Amino acid sequence: MADDAPRRDAALVALDWGTTTFRAWLLDGTGAVLDEVRSADGALTLSARADSARARAAAFEATFARLCRSWLDEHPGIPVLCSGMAGSNLGWADAGYLDVPAELGGLAYRLTVVPAGDSVVHLVPGLRATGAHPDVIRGEEVQLVGALAATSTGRDAAATSDERDAAATSDERDAGTDRRRTVVLPGTHSKWVRLDGGCVAGFSTAMTGELYGLLLRDSILGRLAEGEAGPAASDTFTWGLEAEAGQGDERGLPALLFTARTLVLADRLAGTQVADYLSGLLIGAEVRHALRAEPADVVTLCGSPSTTDRYRVALERSGVMVRAVGEDAAAHGLWRVALDAGLASLDTPEEQLA
Amino acid sequence: MADDAPRRDAALVALDWGTTTFRAWLLDGTGAVLDEVRSADGALTLSARADSARARAAAFEATFARLCRSWLDEHPGIPVLCSGMAGSNLGWADAGYLDVPAELGGLAYRLTVVPAGDSVVHLVPGLRATGAHPDVIRGEEVQLVGALAATSTGRDAAATSDERDAAATSDERDAGTDRRRTVVLPGTHSKWVRLDGGCVAGFSTAMTGELYGLLLRDSILGRLAEGEAGPAASDTFTWGLEAEAGQGDERGLPALLFTARTLVLADRLAGTQVADYLSGLLIGAEVRHALRAEPADVVTLCGSPSTTDRYRVALERSGVMVRAVGEDAAAHGLWRVALDAGLASLDTPEEQLA
Repeated sequence: MADDAPRRDAALVALDWGTTTFRAWLLDGTGAVLDEVRSADGALTLSARADSARARAAAFEATFARLCRSWLDEHPGIPVLCSGMAGSNLGWADAGYLDVPAELGGLAYRLTVVPAGDSVVHLVPGLRATGAHPDVIRGEEVQLVGALAATSTGRDAAATSDERDAAATSDERDAGTDRRRTVVLPGTHSKWVRLDGGCVAGFSTAMTGELYGLLLRDSILGRLAEGEAGPAASDTFTWGLEAEAGQGDERGLPALLFTARTLVLADRLAGTQVADYLSGLLIGAEVRHALRAEPADVVTLCGSPSTTDRYRVALERSGVMVRAVGEDAAAHGLWRVALDAGLASLDTPEEQLA
Repeated sequence: MADDAPRRDAALVALDWGTTTFRAWLLDGTGAVLDEVRSADGALTLSARADSARARAAAFEATFARLCRSWLDEHPGIPVLCSGMAGSNLGWADAGYLDVPAELGGLAYRLTVVPAGDSVVHLVPGLRATGAHPDVIRGEEVQLVGALAATSTGRDAAATSDERDAAATSDERDAGTDRRRTVVLPGTHSKWVRLDGGCVAGFSTAMTGELYGLLLRDSILGRLAEGEAGPAASDTFTWGLEAEAGQGDERGLPALLFTARTLVLADRLAGTQVADYLSGLLIGAEVRHALRAEPADVVTLCGSPSTTDRYRVALERSGVMVRAVGEDAAAHGLWRVALDAGLASLDTPEEQLA
């Protein structure tokens, strides 16, 4: 094979199989994306149709085979790594959890294997918080790995325990501040994750995106709304943020949300503004309370461009500096987990050199 | 007609035609209920089917005629009084609003008349707050009239302006405290109304009941829930109240609601408890914030028995004394508005003595 070609050989099929969306990437030996597939065959749709664990596993296997057929035919034996709800107890197989505090580097050593025709699929475990505030993450853990790789100074990401201990000893307080960070993964269920180096110290979830969808689709407010929230933070979105900041503690969200209706009735909010205003109220409530529970000076944001833009405005309005990471963090994270697990390597596999 | 019979003659058809429910009462010359009709033909269902104001009016008229036919046939010319969403701009006809502060006694002088076959239907106006916090009431205004009649000392309800001025002069502060009261009408859209004697000083709305329905029916939490909230406040409901009181300000509702899922995943909440726990979180948030915005020592509660029980527990937990009024307050209120409007009188109409 010519010298200029090997880097483009396929080395991994990476799946981010969420509740409502299936995303798959064909990655080369450097972790770069060769090809991509997206589909609405989310884990929830499949599990809702199956009446037993066996039927469910068959449905996941058939959907995977259908959506990735051309890749699997062209690259027989290619390793497959999968994160997200496909690894839940209502998914393909239960991939379990790592209890926090948990080193993200440990994900690679707790993969669950399921056969899929001529392929073997490796499921990434989720993260679980026990104690007073139990919570779970499933899928975002590989985004975290990708986000850390994209934003780390290198020292944090690669640090061994000894290096970290040394840094902590030299100036415990400064080093601690430097190593700690908050990563926010906004979405249907937004995750606020507190990291200490490569270790997830804790996290919490706000069902902001799901509430927005329910209100806009099925509530009395949705009947007034003309269209969805725009692609970026608008003045109306900021109005919602400000209303929440000014009145949220006193009036509470169940009362504040209803103002989307009363402001329309009073001709002070147009139907086309309802979605943006609601988005401002809801993201405002999430961000304000999350920062109150766990103050942060800098936040790493990882999401789609339009969602990231809204959270950036809400965070900066609260005096927080934002570092943004693209939504391809999942593909990057899966690649790094695959490397750690020995599923893929920076060398092109021998059988593909033939 | 025999001496013991006249009080049972029909004197008014009273309609409480809400968003999702139609309720009608046939009342005698004392305001007592002779007969009752309930139906799911809510104003929203009718208005959703009609594509013009004319078609909508026809649908309301036909539904009214169908549901009340036997009463109208037996008592030709009987007066009809109607409150609720039937009087909205998406209803039978727009009955307008009284702007607050508004004397409830003024409702009777602002009725809107619509013809309905051989009958004439009188629509009660709603209440509207303008200013910084616009809001509307439509239907609850007659429940307020009924609730006041049921709980007043008599002085408040019957007081003239002169009598009230005199009371205020004799001891302005005590009399003011005595005359002010908070009435809570919990439901899909809970109303917190501040009254000064028979005058509505202001009100606010919390969409607690609608949020509960959306979450239980359509959210990821609903898929974990086995059954609806029970008929009365349970220990699990109180658990929800306490979680909201302890963590609501710090964690916020979008995060707190998600704990219904994480507690189930952690085996600490059973599927059968999800609805009660959610009800506790939501009612807890509504009551806590409403009392923070407008503190009260005593609250008059007007709703169905199971809803009233939950709000009573939430209010008493916050140190508030509760006076409960039954959900038939709407029929009582409509009767009193009809008396004030001269539509009905305590005397049996002559034509019915024949």
